[in-house]
Amino acid sequence: MKEVKLYDTTLRDGAQGEGISYSVMDKIRIAQELDSLGIHYIEGGWPGSNPKDMEFFLAMGRKRINNSALVAFSMTRRPGISAAQDHNLKALIKSQAPVIAIVGKTWDLHVREVIRCSLKENLSMIEDTVRFLVSKGLAVFYDAEHFFDAYKANPQYSLKCIRTAEKAGASAICLCDTNGGSLPSEVAHTVRKIRPHVKAMLGIHCHNDADVAVANTLIAVEAGADMVQGTINGYGERCGNADLVPIIANLKIKMGIDCISDEKLKELVKVSHFVSEVSNMKQRSDQPYTGVSAFAHKGGMHINAVMKNPRAYEHANPELVGNHRRILVSELGGRTGIMLRAKAMELDLGKDDPKTKKILKLIQALEHKGYHFEAAEASFELLMKKALKKYGRFFELEGFRVVIEKLSDKKITSEAIIKLSVKGAKEHTAAEGDGPVNALDNALRKALKDFYPTLSKMHLSDFKVRVLDEKAGTAARVRVLIQSQDEDETWNTIGVSENLIEASWQALVDSIEYKLLKDGAGK
Amino acid sequence: MKEVKLYDTTLRDGAQGEGISYSVMDKIRIAQELDSLGIHYIEGGWPGSNPKDMEFFLAMGRKRINNSALVAFSMTRRPGISAAQDHNLKALIKSQAPVIAIVGKTWDLHVREVIRCSLKENLSMIEDTVRFLVSKGLAVFYDAEHFFDAYKANPQYSLKCIRTAEKAGASAICLCDTNGGSLPSEVAHTVRKIRPHVKAMLGIHCHNDADVAVANTLIAVEAGADMVQGTINGYGERCGNADLVPIIANLKIKMGIDCISDEKLKELVKVSHFVSEVSNMKQRSDQPYTGVSAFAHKGGMHINAVMKNPRAYEHANPELVGNHRRILVSELGGRTGIMLRAKAMELDLGKDDPKTKKILKLIQALEHKGYHFEAAEASFELLMKKALKKYGRFFELEGFRVVIEKLSDKKITSEAIIKLSVKGAKEHTAAEGDGPVNALDNALRKALKDFYPTLSKMHLSDFKVRVLDEKAGTAARVRVLIQSQDEDETWNTIGVSENLIEASWQALVDSIEYKLLKDGAGK
Repeated sequence: MKEVKLYDTTLRDGAQGEGISYSVMDKIRIAQELDSLGIHYIEGGWPGSNPKDMEFFLAMGRKRINNSALVAFSMTRRPGISAAQDHNLKALIKSQAPVIAIVGKTWDLHVREVIRCSLKENLSMIEDTVRFLVSKGLAVFYDAEHFFDAYKANPQYSLKCIRTAEKAGASAICLCDTNGGSLPSEVAHTVRKIRPHVKAMLGIHCHNDADVAVANTLIAVEAGADMVQGTINGYGERCGNADLVPIIANLKIKMGIDCISDEKLKELVKVSHFVSEVSNMKQRSDQPYTGVSAFAHKGGMHINAVMKNPRAYEHANPELVGNHRRILVSELGGRTGIMLRAKAMELDLGKDDPKTKKILKLIQALEHKGYHFEAAEASFELLMKKALKKYGRFFELEGFRVVIEKLSDKKITSEAIIKLSVKGAKEHTAAEGDGPVNALDNALRKALKDFYPTLSKMHLSDFKVRVLDEKAGTAARVRVLIQSQDEDETWNTIGVSENLIEASWQALVDSIEYKLLKDGAGK
Repeated sequence: MKEVKLYDTTLRDGAQGEGISYSVMDKIRIAQELDSLGIHYIEGGWPGSNPKDMEFFLAMGRKRINNSALVAFSMTRRPGISAAQDHNLKALIKSQAPVIAIVGKTWDLHVREVIRCSLKENLSMIEDTVRFLVSKGLAVFYDAEHFFDAYKANPQYSLKCIRTAEKAGASAICLCDTNGGSLPSEVAHTVRKIRPHVKAMLGIHCHNDADVAVANTLIAVEAGADMVQGTINGYGERCGNADLVPIIANLKIKMGIDCISDEKLKELVKVSHFVSEVSNMKQRSDQPYTGVSAFAHKGGMHINAVMKNPRAYEHANPELVGNHRRILVSELGGRTGIMLRAKAMELDLGKDDPKTKKILKLIQALEHKGYHFEAAEASFELLMKKALKKYGRFFELEGFRVVIEKLSDKKITSEAIIKLSVKGAKEHTAAEGDGPVNALDNALRKALKDFYPTLSKMHLSDFKVRVLDEKAGTAARVRVLIQSQDEDETWNTIGVSENLIEASWQALVDSIEYKLLKDGAGK
C-alpha cells in the first residue's frame, strides 16, 4: 500500500487566517492533539519572526511527543550576507526543532520584483541556507514558493531552484501553489513533469483561492507526490489552505493510501472540532466528512431510502471518521422524520397518527417564525412531549424584571428580580450577573434550587445569538441557542423573539425543564 | 471560444441545505437576481412536491424574465402507472415552466433496493416520462441520479438509462454525483467515456461530500461536459452542492470559457452576498473569489510584496469579480499595515513614528481582550484619531438605565432611560424598544437628534453578537459588531465586554461618533 506523509501547518499558515490568533498555550494544545492523531510533521511556527513562536518551540522541547516531528519554518538567508550571519537562521537552531522548512523563491518575477536581487544570487541563497542547516545536523525541507506559477513562467529557472536545494542536501522538496490559483489539470501536469527530477520526498502545498485545494492535493498524490501539507479545517490566509481533514479521509477511505491508522481516523471529527474550538472559529456544519451536516438527511425521500440502505445517499460510512447519521426535523423531512425522532425518544407515534400531522404543522409554523429545531433537539423533545400531553409544568412565572444600569463611565451592573410559584409555594428573589441573561439565569436557579436540587448538577456550556433579519438592525428578531450539560449529557435549546431577553428566557426555561424531565423530577 | 451553459439549482437543491428555508418571495427575489446575472437555466423547485413551489412557478409566469429559462423539477413516473396518470407530471405541466428536469435512477442498487421494481420497468419509466413531456411541447433534461456510482457498479445498465432518455427526446443528459463521493480522476475518466455516446447537451451535477465538487465540475468541462449545475455559495444538503460562484470565476478567468459576460462577472460578489442574505446564511468570509477575506493580506511580508506587485500574492485581479484588496490590521500585519491604514485615512504617520508603535501596542492589547478590528474598520479609525488627538467628544454620558419587564406570559417590554450632556446642555430622556439594545439605541438618538440632525440620515443595518469564551455559558464575554449605513457609506463598529449591553453600547457610540466625525459635526 502506498504511503503518504502528512505535514500540518495549522500553527503557522493556519494562524495567518483572518480572525485567528493563537496563544502559546493554544499552540501547545493543538500540537499535542496532532501528535496523538499521528501527523508526521507539525510545523510550529517561525521562531525568527516573533517571540511567541520561539517560546512555543522551547516549551515543546520539554514535552513528550510520540508520533510527530516538530518543524520550524523560515526563509532563505537575506541577499548579500552569509547564512551564518542571518538572525532568522540562528533562531532556527536555537528553536531545537529537528526538522527545518525553508521557503525560497522559485518564480523569477518574485526574485526580480519582490526581493530584488539577481537570479543567480537567489540560487546561492537557496544553496547556502540549505547547506548551512544540514551542516548543523538538521533535516531540511525546501518549500518552493509559487512553484506552479514559476514553472509556467520560467520552467528552467524554477527547476534549477529545486535542484539546487536537493543538491545542497534538502530531504524534501515541496511544491507550493502559494497564490492558490492553479487548477487540477495544471497541478497534475506539473507534478508529473517534476517527479522524475526529484529523488527526495516530494511535497504538495495548496491554497484554496480557486476552491480546488483539496482536489489539487489528491491529484498531486496520484501524480507522484508523497507528502501533503495542509491545515486542520483548512484555516489559512485569504481563502485558506488545503483542508487536511477531508484529505486524510479521502486518502484513507477512497484512495487506499496509508497515512494514519484506522483507529485514529475515527478521531477525525474530534480533532476537527477541537481545533475549531481552540481557534475560536465556528465549526463549518457542512464540512465534508466531519461537519455536523455531513451525514444529515432532510428530504423525506432521502430519509426513506437511507433507512433501506445507507449507501443510497451516503458516500462513506460516517463511523469511519467518528461521525454519525442524523435525521433532521423540518418541513421537508416530513412525517417520517418526526416518527423516527419519536421512536428515538421511545414515544409511541405512527406515521399516520393524526398527532403526527398536528406536530408537523406546529413545527412548520414555528420554523416559519425562525425556530430551528435541527439545532435544538431538547426543545424539540419538550415540544413533542407537550403536544402528546406527557408533560406537566414545573413552575409558573408570575413575572421578572431585569435592570441594567451604567453611571458615567463606570462598570455596568445587571440585576434580575423574579417572582414565581413552584409546588404551591411563592418564590420572590433577585440576583446579579454579568449581563442581563446571566442575571436572569442566576435568579431563576436561585428561585428553583430548593425545590429541584439536581439543578445544581447542570450548567450552561454555550450561549449563541443569531440575528434573523439583520436588515432591521438592533430591532431585529434574534434566535438564541443555549447548550447545557450535566455529568452525562449535553443538550441544546432554542428561543426566538424580537427581544433578546425573551428569546433567552425561552431557551433557559427549556433547558431547565429538559433537565428536570430527564431526572424524573416532575413525578 | 468554448461556451458552457449554467444551470442553477439554489431554489431546489440549495433549499435542502440545513438551516435554509425559502418563502415564495425569497425564491422570486433570487430568481430575478439569477436572471439578471445571466444564468441560462434556473431550476425553481418541484411543483408536485409542495404547494410553495407551485405558487412560485405561477407567480414567475407573471414576471418578466430576460435571460434565463425556468426549469421545473420532478422524478420519473411511479412504477406501474402511466405517465399521464402521475400527479407529479401533471403538476409540471400546470407549472408552465418551459424546461423540465426529470431525475431518474441509473444505479441498479437504487432500482432494486429503493424503488423496488425491475431494471426493465425503470427503463420504461424513463422512456414514458420523457416522451410524455416532450409530446406536450416541453424541453426535457434528464438527470441521471448517482451516475458515477452507477457506472462503476454496472456500466452497461447506467449507459442504457441515459440512452433511453436521449432516444425518448431528452435535450440534455446530466451526470449527477448525487452522493458527492467521487474523486476528480474518476469523474474525468467517466465523462470522457460517456461523452461520445451522448449527442445532446451533457451536464455535470456535483455534490461536495469529498470536498472536491468545484474541481470535479471543472474537470468534467475539460472532459466534454457543456452544462454545469450548481448552487450559489454551494448551498445544499449535507456538504452542499458545487458552488457556482468560483465555478463561474474559474471558467471565465482561468479557463477562457464563455458563460456570462465580463460585465456581469463584476457582479459576482454582489450576487453571492445577496443570496446569502436572502438565505439567512452567514457569508463565508473565506469564499474563493467573493469572500471578504479572498484578497485580504495579513502577513507583513505579503503586504509589502503586494504593494510592489499584486500578482506576487494574488491569483487573480479582484476587480474582475467585483471584489477588492484589503490590508488587515493585526499584530501580524505590523507597522506597515497601520501606516497604510493611516494613509487611506489621510493621516500623516510614518512607519518609524513613535506614535505608530504606540498604536500597534494598543491594538495588540485590545485584540488580546477580544476586539477584532479587521471586522470593524470604523472603530479602528476612531481609535487612531483618538490616539493622534484628532478627536473631541460629541457628548458625555452621565448614566443610563435599561429596564426589561415580563409579567406572567405577557409580552416582554424594554425601556431605556438616559442622561447626558451635549454642547453644554443636559438631556434626560427615555425610549422603548424591541429588546434592551434597541431601546438604548432609540433613547440615545432621541437625546442627540436636536444637536446633530444628520443622525436622522443614518440607521443600523446589521447587529451581530459573538460569544467569545463559550465555555462560560451566559456569563461569557461577548463581541458585538454593528453595521450602520447612510446614503453614501456602510461602516462597522465593535464592542467587547462580559456584559452584552456594555458591548452594544460601545459599538453604538462608535457608530454614531464615526458618522458625526465624517460629517464634520464636531467643528
